[in-house]
Amino acid sequence: MEKRSIGPGTLLGPLPVVLVGSYGEVERHGTTSVIQNPMTAAWTGIVNSTPPMVSVSIRPERLSHRFIMETGEFTLNIASSSQAADVDFCGVKSGRDLDKAKACHLTPLKLSTLSVTAGYKECPVILACRVHEVKKLGSHDMFIGKIVDVLADDALFAKDQLDLTKADLLTYYHGDYYGQSRRIGFFGYSVAKTNVLKRRLPKEFWPEAR
Amino acid sequence: MEKRSIGPGTLLGPLPVVLVGSYGEVERHGTTSVIQNPMTAAWTGIVNSTPPMVSVSIRPERLSHRFIMETGEFTLNIASSSQAADVDFCGVKSGRDLDKAKACHLTPLKLSTLSVTAGYKECPVILACRVHEVKKLGSHDMFIGKIVDVLADDALFAKDQLDLTKADLLTYYHGDYYGQSRRIGFFGYSVAKTNVLKRRLPKEFWPEAR
Repeated sequence: MEKRSIGPGTLLGPLPVVLVGSYGEVERHGTTSVIQNPMTAAWTGIVNSTPPMVSVSIRPERLSHRFIMETGEFTLNIASSSQAADVDFCGVKSGRDLDKAKACHLTPLKLSTLSVTAGYKECPVILACRVHEVKKLGSHDMFIGKIVDVLADDALFAKDQLDLTKADLLTYYHGDYYGQSRRIGFFGYSVAKTNVLKRRLPKEFWPEAR
Repeated sequence: MEKRSIGPGTLLGPLPVVLVGSYGEVERHGTTSVIQNPMTAAWTGIVNSTPPMVSVSIRPERLSHRFIMETGEFTLNIASSSQAADVDFCGVKSGRDLDKAKACHLTPLKLSTLSVTAGYKECPVILACRVHEVKKLGSHDMFIGKIVDVLADDALFAKDQLDLTKADLLTYYHGDYYGQSRRIGFFGYSVAKTNVLKRRLPKEFWPEAR
């Protein structure tokens, strides 16, 4: 476990990968259109529990930055592993050049909690967010958003309990995408009683008693 | 892909799970000691690329909150799946009651870039951070930190290239811990040339041409 210093860098992970949904007007090849624009981001995270808040950092030169500044709202569409190539595509291409939602067969879904910005039907979980504050940090501006609603696929519910393991969520770090692997514990399992462990976790993952 | 609204909530994921390292004085059972204190957090994320910055949100009532306010520095110690039970333990227990580092056999590692706060040797990656700003958001305060150094296990390097897949990093969402799974793509792979795909990715993960 000898360590090597590699200097300052953004090496935190695994990170969630989301399609940031935003809405606005764009001019392409001389024609003006109003679009729903998905942009990939991994510089995102939960920043507060009560009220539920999220941050997503976006470069000012991005089209999505202007769209979110104009509307004051955005969606975070969490992606499944099966969507990895679409997610990658929406990270390397710009809505200034093509309709990314169309190219990736992403279907905009109108949300009752936002005024104009859609989520994407194909993503298993959608967070509807309203901008609380924008902070300039350097290369990126951090949008702090209040989560005003969460939508999840009907198929992810079993007896009204949300089971996210079915969603096979995508993660990202250090330039690579990863699928999601097996559940190995639950919050509090290191100190849980045996009968609770027995009910909730395969024996191979039981922690040693402390 | 019909969606169900479940109202506002913190349902973003998978999230990285880190041991937040902080340093300070604590009184336990009438005795004052100076300790390195690991606290588990998943409300963390990258918020800026240049300069590299991170955020981690901590409740004001937490011991780590006071420690970080006093020293202006913290470490984020990224955990492997094999450390899941320790990580869970450091999330449910408080440094006010016991020495969590000792209980979990975590070895503090002195860092040249911070004045008093240690990293933990057993974690594959350590981010050394100095507080840039603290933002009150409600239940949590968000610490925005400049990443002043990153340290990674020697064993994770192959020909001076960092290979994080070897670290089997831990993730967390919706109350459960998960291990890391197979790499399924790299940034830009949706538009990469065949010879690049051939070199960098097993054929089963090649995206369809667009």
